[in-house]
Amino acid sequence: MKRDIYLENTPLNEASERWDKKLLESGIAKPLEGEGIKVIDSLSRITAEVVFARLSSPFYHSSAMDGYVVRFADTFGASDRNPKQLNVPEQAVYINTGDPMPDGFNAVIMIEDVNLVRKQDSFSNGVNTIKADKTNPPLPPFDKGGMGGFSEYIEIITPATPWQNVRIIGEDIVATELILPENHKIRPVDIGAMLAGGLTTVNVRRKPCVAIIPTGSEIVEPGEKLKKGDIIEYNSRILSGLVTEWGGEPVRFNSVSDNIEELKKALLDALEAADMVAIIAGSSAGTKDFTPHVIKELGEMILHGINIRPGKPLILGWVNNKPVLGIPGYPVSAYITFELFAKPLIHIWQGIELKEKEKAKAKAKAKARLSRQIASSLGMEEFVRVKVGKVGENFIASPVSRGAGILMSLVRADGILRIPAMSEGFGAGTEVEVELIRHSNEIKNTIICIGSHDITLDILANFLKKKYPKYSLSSAHVGSMGGLFALKRGEAHIAGMHLLDEETGEYNVPFINRLFNKNNPPAPTFDKNPPIPPLSKEGKGGLINPSVSPLSKGGIKEKIILVNLVYRQQGLYILKGNPKNIKGFEDLTRHEVTFINRQTGSGTRLLTDKHLREFGIDSQKIKGYEREEYTHMTVASAVLTGIADTGLGILAASKALGLDFIPVAKERYDLAIPQKFYESEMIEGLLKIITEDKEFRDIVVSLGGYDISDMGKIVYDGTNRRI
Amino acid sequence: MKRDIYLENTPLNEASERWDKKLLESGIAKPLEGEGIKVIDSLSRITAEVVFARLSSPFYHSSAMDGYVVRFADTFGASDRNPKQLNVPEQAVYINTGDPMPDGFNAVIMIEDVNLVRKQDSFSNGVNTIKADKTNPPLPPFDKGGMGGFSEYIEIITPATPWQNVRIIGEDIVATELILPENHKIRPVDIGAMLAGGLTTVNVRRKPCVAIIPTGSEIVEPGEKLKKGDIIEYNSRILSGLVTEWGGEPVRFNSVSDNIEELKKALLDALEAADMVAIIAGSSAGTKDFTPHVIKELGEMILHGINIRPGKPLILGWVNNKPVLGIPGYPVSAYITFELFAKPLIHIWQGIELKEKEKAKAKAKAKARLSRQIASSLGMEEFVRVKVGKVGENFIASPVSRGAGILMSLVRADGILRIPAMSEGFGAGTEVEVELIRHSNEIKNTIICIGSHDITLDILANFLKKKYPKYSLSSAHVGSMGGLFALKRGEAHIAGMHLLDEETGEYNVPFINRLFNKNNPPAPTFDKNPPIPPLSKEGKGGLINPSVSPLSKGGIKEKIILVNLVYRQQGLYILKGNPKNIKGFEDLTRHEVTFINRQTGSGTRLLTDKHLREFGIDSQKIKGYEREEYTHMTVASAVLTGIADTGLGILAASKALGLDFIPVAKERYDLAIPQKFYESEMIEGLLKIITEDKEFRDIVVSLGGYDISDMGKIVYDGTNRRI
Repeated sequence: MKRDIYLENTPLNEASERWDKKLLESGIAKPLEGEGIKVIDSLSRITAEVVFARLSSPFYHSSAMDGYVVRFADTFGASDRNPKQLNVPEQAVYINTGDPMPDGFNAVIMIEDVNLVRKQDSFSNGVNTIKADKTNPPLPPFDKGGMGGFSEYIEIITPATPWQNVRIIGEDIVATELILPENHKIRPVDIGAMLAGGLTTVNVRRKPCVAIIPTGSEIVEPGEKLKKGDIIEYNSRILSGLVTEWGGEPVRFNSVSDNIEELKKALLDALEAADMVAIIAGSSAGTKDFTPHVIKELGEMILHGINIRPGKPLILGWVNNKPVLGIPGYPVSAYITFELFAKPLIHIWQGIELKEKEKAKAKAKAKARLSRQIASSLGMEEFVRVKVGKVGENFIASPVSRGAGILMSLVRADGILRIPAMSEGFGAGTEVEVELIRHSNEIKNTIICIGSHDITLDILANFLKKKYPKYSLSSAHVGSMGGLFALKRGEAHIAGMHLLDEETGEYNVPFINRLFNKNNPPAPTFDKNPPIPPLSKEGKGGLINPSVSPLSKGGIKEKIILVNLVYRQQGLYILKGNPKNIKGFEDLTRHEVTFINRQTGSGTRLLTDKHLREFGIDSQKIKGYEREEYTHMTVASAVLTGIADTGLGILAASKALGLDFIPVAKERYDLAIPQKFYESEMIEGLLKIITEDKEFRDIVVSLGGYDISDMGKIVYDGTNRRI
Repeated sequence: MKRDIYLENTPLNEASERWDKKLLESGIAKPLEGEGIKVIDSLSRITAEVVFARLSSPFYHSSAMDGYVVRFADTFGASDRNPKQLNVPEQAVYINTGDPMPDGFNAVIMIEDVNLVRKQDSFSNGVNTIKADKTNPPLPPFDKGGMGGFSEYIEIITPATPWQNVRIIGEDIVATELILPENHKIRPVDIGAMLAGGLTTVNVRRKPCVAIIPTGSEIVEPGEKLKKGDIIEYNSRILSGLVTEWGGEPVRFNSVSDNIEELKKALLDALEAADMVAIIAGSSAGTKDFTPHVIKELGEMILHGINIRPGKPLILGWVNNKPVLGIPGYPVSAYITFELFAKPLIHIWQGIELKEKEKAKAKAKAKARLSRQIASSLGMEEFVRVKVGKVGENFIASPVSRGAGILMSLVRADGILRIPAMSEGFGAGTEVEVELIRHSNEIKNTIICIGSHDITLDILANFLKKKYPKYSLSSAHVGSMGGLFALKRGEAHIAGMHLLDEETGEYNVPFINRLFNKNNPPAPTFDKNPPIPPLSKEGKGGLINPSVSPLSKGGIKEKIILVNLVYRQQGLYILKGNPKNIKGFEDLTRHEVTFINRQTGSGTRLLTDKHLREFGIDSQKIKGYEREEYTHMTVASAVLTGIADTGLGILAASKALGLDFIPVAKERYDLAIPQKFYESEMIEGLLKIITEDKEFRDIVVSLGGYDISDMGKIVYDGTNRRI
């Protein structure tokens, strides 16, 4: 296929306008026709026309109480002094709740307000008065023939009012009354009301059908045996799920390899079957991108290329008077473009919403402060996935990976921040508006952990969700020092840290004292990695940095509590069998050895640099020293996949990926928690798991390289008193 | 069955404690075991264990761009002045996005940054440089043998950095990494991530199965031919829908007639099949209430009778170590008790929430002002259904019908107001907290219409929903005067009215002038029906009530616009064929004729009283004059069902119910709209339908008795200038 196609750079609003214009002209952008279905199957469907009652409910007068039906006129004048007796069954008849009123009667007297009177017919003095209530049920219908003959009466002391205790016809629903309007999503009570109103079928909107065609010769079905170059097809499953969530009916087609005739055939078949078609991948302008050619050949290409990131190589097409979307193959691009252009139409077809403008308004949003700077290219609207947390009174948004191929950025995101085309991004601390993709209640119940990464945090996150389903733990990995700064800026509830103070040989506490226990300036915000602050050189006891004036503005003293999570083994990762014969730090300068580093500000980087100093090694001489990763897992992964030959990290990660490990040091890993969060219900739950949960501890031990002897112990209580 | 059973009066919190204790002791209140299902079928299911990735994604290094793979070491030193040439295919190989990196290569140079150079092997000067970009695709793999022999090179002017433009293994997902925690509701992107992580099945919570058994000899299936005494069974469909919405699996059993052995058998069958059983109706202490006996006989009765309204005759039972709920038969009682006691457990079983307390917290709530007083019995917790509207800045809550049998009260409600047992209710204007059952966005988009009832308002409500799906019209029927007072108190957006001023013979305007156009005291709140305010007696032009001081506190002048909706025919309803031979008002005093009245403050009541005065009839002489209904439809229904012989109302209602009609007067029915709402988007939509929509007008005309010649006309613009 020749590269004779260019991608446009159409701004989003212009693209939407072009699309809306086409939809309007085509006449298809209106609610779909209705289909009759059973009322009992109509939950969550949308009414296609107004629903009127056919029957009244109740459709006969009935008793609202257990008691006696009477004619209210017969009860006039009854009083305490002048009780009135009514003959059964001529003037009063026993009735159960819900039973129809006998003809001619027009009131019910509750059984509790009635005395039963029996008179033996033969001698008129044989009167027997019974208080008839729930414990003394009325006698069975009086048998005038047998037992010598009794007459039965009820005695009342209050007159009845007309229609008292009667459910009159139509009390709930009057025949012909409007039960549900058109375009109404049917709820359980609506089903009840329709049935009560005498309806058994209801006319609901047909579900919009969306055909989804995955393409590409390299894609394989999940579960197939994989070889290098294969790509597991999952985009169609994401889009299908979205269609279902939006109320449509997805139809997934088998995947089509890179063959223009096959793709044409699949598209024509899909157009037969569906209201809209989405073709996944092949939408760009490369040699293997067939979607634009097929759409051009069979119909009209309305747009090819949109000025957003991710999502640029989008196609808006029109074939056989039906919309055809060419969806980019990267998962985040697919998700974002599909939501922008498929969702509104699926809603319109159901009669839920009419305008894109309204859709935007309906989105849940939150104002949040950015925890770090986000740069963005001028001239391109960007959709940045962010984690959002509520720390104290503030919502804090932190960007997650931005690549269009990083599906996990969507899995982990709480919201999406749109950066307009005319903006170069936002500085740290900027207040921005985030479109939430998780419920704000969930966000409020999320513990934000920023700092050093440890695998036990992942395990802890899972246990928290398991034991306290409403809480979540969200970790961002910016290194130990970055975590402390985040605490200081009020952007995190807890911080994981393992910072060794070379002066004192002590872990973590000196750094906390330096940052929190004196009137220091507020924590700076950094666009990249925070530097390690200089520690006092004033001898062992001197944890105060004299260079910072106690008068500096904005400083607050804050009590930080340190809880030990684990002691852990750090060491060098090497491939199984140690093919490069690496024995320790001294081998890092060998020219055939490539190292992979951790980022500045991480405890592991501190440990690396400490060892380099001890060995007298110049970091300039180490190949790969400048390449930084943010987690143990990514360092281990780099070694496993040959990007580097070795790197420093914790034992658990090497075990997880089957690497060999050269132990270097055992270090203390603590959680730093400001006093004000320490006693919150959320953190209490978290600490309970750390201190008490045997299953959690067993799993941590089984990871390897962890010593849990102090797990959950308060190692520092915020005072300089040693514990 | 003997009435040897009493209902308890257990307060809700005590009942919940007893229930929770039982759940705790039984050991069943924990998440259900998992079941393995296909990942592609797992949308909206809940993970039963943590999900780890089996594969990395990508699981091989691949190119992130179309371009050339190189070894970055070969590119050292390339610059503008010193371009570097790399031999194809030894040092550089063309690659498409997504293709695996050939072994030994470790960077990709974008095709845009490359010049293609061809050298003819035979004469070394034959050099041909091509800018290789999207429009100039790379040549097919060079054929060294043919065409006299070419060599191909790429020329670059910037060195590559290691792994640039390469998607490295695990860039998205690293094998062993946590993809989803336990107790997580699976979203479309999660399905994608699991598939990408090499999973095809996932362990999700089994759906809690709830068996629902309707009971009662009088109940029949929807659609069956009905006879007096039959009750259409719909409660089980409401509860089934709720179970589905809460994530469970409902199993509806066939209904069981009032027979203790049959009920026993059904319960035992249901316990086999389900995790929990709900038996509907027969839960009280009457002669036909078998549920308590069956539960006592087969297991344990934990509670019988709870001190809430609606919902009192609830049973909490325990049979074969499974919970059995005896659910009251009235639909509102069924709904409320089922939500209180079944929902939390269904959630616990899915691992969603653990505590009732948390559930309560999670409910959406709104603070609202009560539009009228609500009285409540001391000693009983009451659940009052309310309509909620947002008028200006205030949320306004108005109670709807309170009967346990009024299912439409749930259909129409926006929220539920709980009145504690120790409260006798709330006064009008009190700020209360309402548990919302509709989304607050929907509530904000609802036009609150309070005032006189007209059937065209129902039609209008449907057209609004149809044409502007996001808006709703909610009407409360309190009569014309009540509507004006509601406008004055800021509790409604519009008011429907038809008030004839006998002095001037003019409709509506005099009443608006009286209430809004002078500095009058704020509108009073009434516990029942508002009185008609006295009009000025100062001659025709004098619309000002001199008895109100212009200095009275709190008065505000407000501009009200009157838009005509219809002229309509009022008259007397009589049964078809006129069995009582009623000819007009003069027949109302005949002793065999029963009248049904409209409430004080309604325009129709005003009309009634005006005619009585004209005929010189003493209202005391009219049987039924004291019985008041709130809508035309309920008056017509009362006549149809024999509760009364005649009543005054509009023609449309008599046509709907097939009554005969004696015309009495033609009157003007207007909508009163304060200026500040008149220009809102919501009201604009409504007015557009009134003024422009032909279909709407046609339907109104077809109802009968309506003259639409002034429909949509502004009949009063808020000044005393006549239009």
